[in-house]
Amino acid sequence: MKALRVEKKGIALREIERPQSAGEVLVRVLLSGICNTDLEIARGYAGFQGTIGHEFVGMVEESPNGSLLGKRVVGEINAGCGKCELCQGGDARHCRTRTVLGIVGRDGAHAEFLRLPLTNLLPVPERIADEHAVFTEPLAAACAIAERVTVRASNRLAVIGDGKLGLLCAQVLALTGASVLLIGRHAEKLRIAERRGIETLTAKACATRRREFDTVIEASGSPRGFEMALELLQPRGTLVLKSTFQGKTEIDSARIVVDEISVVGSRCGRFAPALDLLRKGAVDVDNLISEEYPLADGVLAMRRAAKRGSLKVLLRP
Amino acid sequence: MKALRVEKKGIALREIERPQSAGEVLVRVLLSGICNTDLEIARGYAGFQGTIGHEFVGMVEESPNGSLLGKRVVGEINAGCGKCELCQGGDARHCRTRTVLGIVGRDGAHAEFLRLPLTNLLPVPERIADEHAVFTEPLAAACAIAERVTVRASNRLAVIGDGKLGLLCAQVLALTGASVLLIGRHAEKLRIAERRGIETLTAKACATRRREFDTVIEASGSPRGFEMALELLQPRGTLVLKSTFQGKTEIDSARIVVDEISVVGSRCGRFAPALDLLRKGAVDVDNLISEEYPLADGVLAMRRAAKRGSLKVLLRP
Repeated sequence: MKALRVEKKGIALREIERPQSAGEVLVRVLLSGICNTDLEIARGYAGFQGTIGHEFVGMVEESPNGSLLGKRVVGEINAGCGKCELCQGGDARHCRTRTVLGIVGRDGAHAEFLRLPLTNLLPVPERIADEHAVFTEPLAAACAIAERVTVRASNRLAVIGDGKLGLLCAQVLALTGASVLLIGRHAEKLRIAERRGIETLTAKACATRRREFDTVIEASGSPRGFEMALELLQPRGTLVLKSTFQGKTEIDSARIVVDEISVVGSRCGRFAPALDLLRKGAVDVDNLISEEYPLADGVLAMRRAAKRGSLKVLLRP
Repeated sequence: MKALRVEKKGIALREIERPQSAGEVLVRVLLSGICNTDLEIARGYAGFQGTIGHEFVGMVEESPNGSLLGKRVVGEINAGCGKCELCQGGDARHCRTRTVLGIVGRDGAHAEFLRLPLTNLLPVPERIADEHAVFTEPLAAACAIAERVTVRASNRLAVIGDGKLGLLCAQVLALTGASVLLIGRHAEKLRIAERRGIETLTAKACATRRREFDTVIEASGSPRGFEMALELLQPRGTLVLKSTFQGKTEIDSARIVVDEISVVGSRCGRFAPALDLLRKGAVDVDNLISEEYPLADGVLAMRRAAKRGSLKVLLRP
């Protein structure tokens, strides 16, 4: 089967063997989405080699006990040991020996087939189109903010970054009734949020909004975003870090102490709330799709996804 | 009067005019303590010029309405505008236009006299010796951790740094019944905590304790402490930053996101809980005193305080 692989020398489309289900579920991928993390992995982040990709919708082809067979599914990307306290509690996201689809020790979704444990998979309600269902993983990551901080309608929130993740975070947070400002560099991307009634601002202008926000979400994936977030925050405010990227960030830690800021890391979310939002059409994902390519053109698609101004690039096997 | 001043060219003992009370309270300093922040200020932190020092115990010499006159007092160091929402709520610590004793826009405590607003001052119970009362400010900073994170007896805490602040934090946290490990580089300082029943470890050995703690307090004031804290923390753990220092810290922000760490800044505390602990003798401060100098030898005392292995150096006007 075809698979988009990160190798020592870089990224390549390869013909490899179809995975064995090996007690897990074999899924035929219908559509996969390129995430910024895929681009970071191609640059060396996480030290991963193998098939990349962790956003997908697919059909179950083989299932160990027959459940979900023939069903359309999406899949949570962390596969735990199943034995530790965390896994036993039903949350493998911080299992120490976890594998992560297309990121840590497990081949990913930019391929014709993938495999995942049965417990990771959720059936997709019929009325959600493939092109929407493929957003379940990044939308769940946006929903995960609410697992780490309490958002109330009285909060004053800013989201930094008008990329895919920032646009999803701003939309999800706006559903709480809180005031949300999205800060970005691309008028056409900010327009997507504006059409949903979200206030926007260009990054250049945000010096006028210093110390105005109690919660700032950093979703730009750039070290400058971290610095900007500290400027926007009130004393005792909360900075939620959503982006992972390679390399070190220089921070003014005295500022964190003096203003008693909380910096809160947030990673993967649960899929059920995200599927629910997609089913209700509560979040615009249509306008987040930039382009679709056949998986065979995966290398080109990765280049396109890395271009400034690009939003979600989809791959169809 | 004599005052220890940070000037453009460095630190110097000067003869300056005694401050006017100007609607505030005039305090004759009995004893002041040199804090690491004083050393950082002498290196350029906070851009302050003037009389340094913010830890003191003194006698009230003039008071606008006569209250506290002749009383022995300690004083909270943040002086707010008195008008903003925060000040009206009784907490000037984050007032935007605050001055801070010996740190921001207000001459400090390494002098024969200082002035502070009446609302900043607390009388010192008779049974607390001057040499203990002078620790109220740093002890309050240790108590302030509980304002920012919830500490339960079930928590597994580590404190990084066996300096004055680390030793106070470890002792205060141990009073909650939680398990506390103090990590440092000086056997003789670690012994002070051990005598209070606190487990200790040398910094070299702490690789054996990776991912064991739910809460880590960084009180070493070194960027390496930040990195070490991340290594010690469990996923979803909390890193409390207590130290302020000049310059930038390089952090692995992906680690904060992937492990969903919370980094929580913590600065000044309220004095009442600290005075209460001193009154009860619940915290050992005697063994934190390295040396005492006359204020006239303040420049020498600052050099001594900066020496490796030194703990609290006191100045007596």
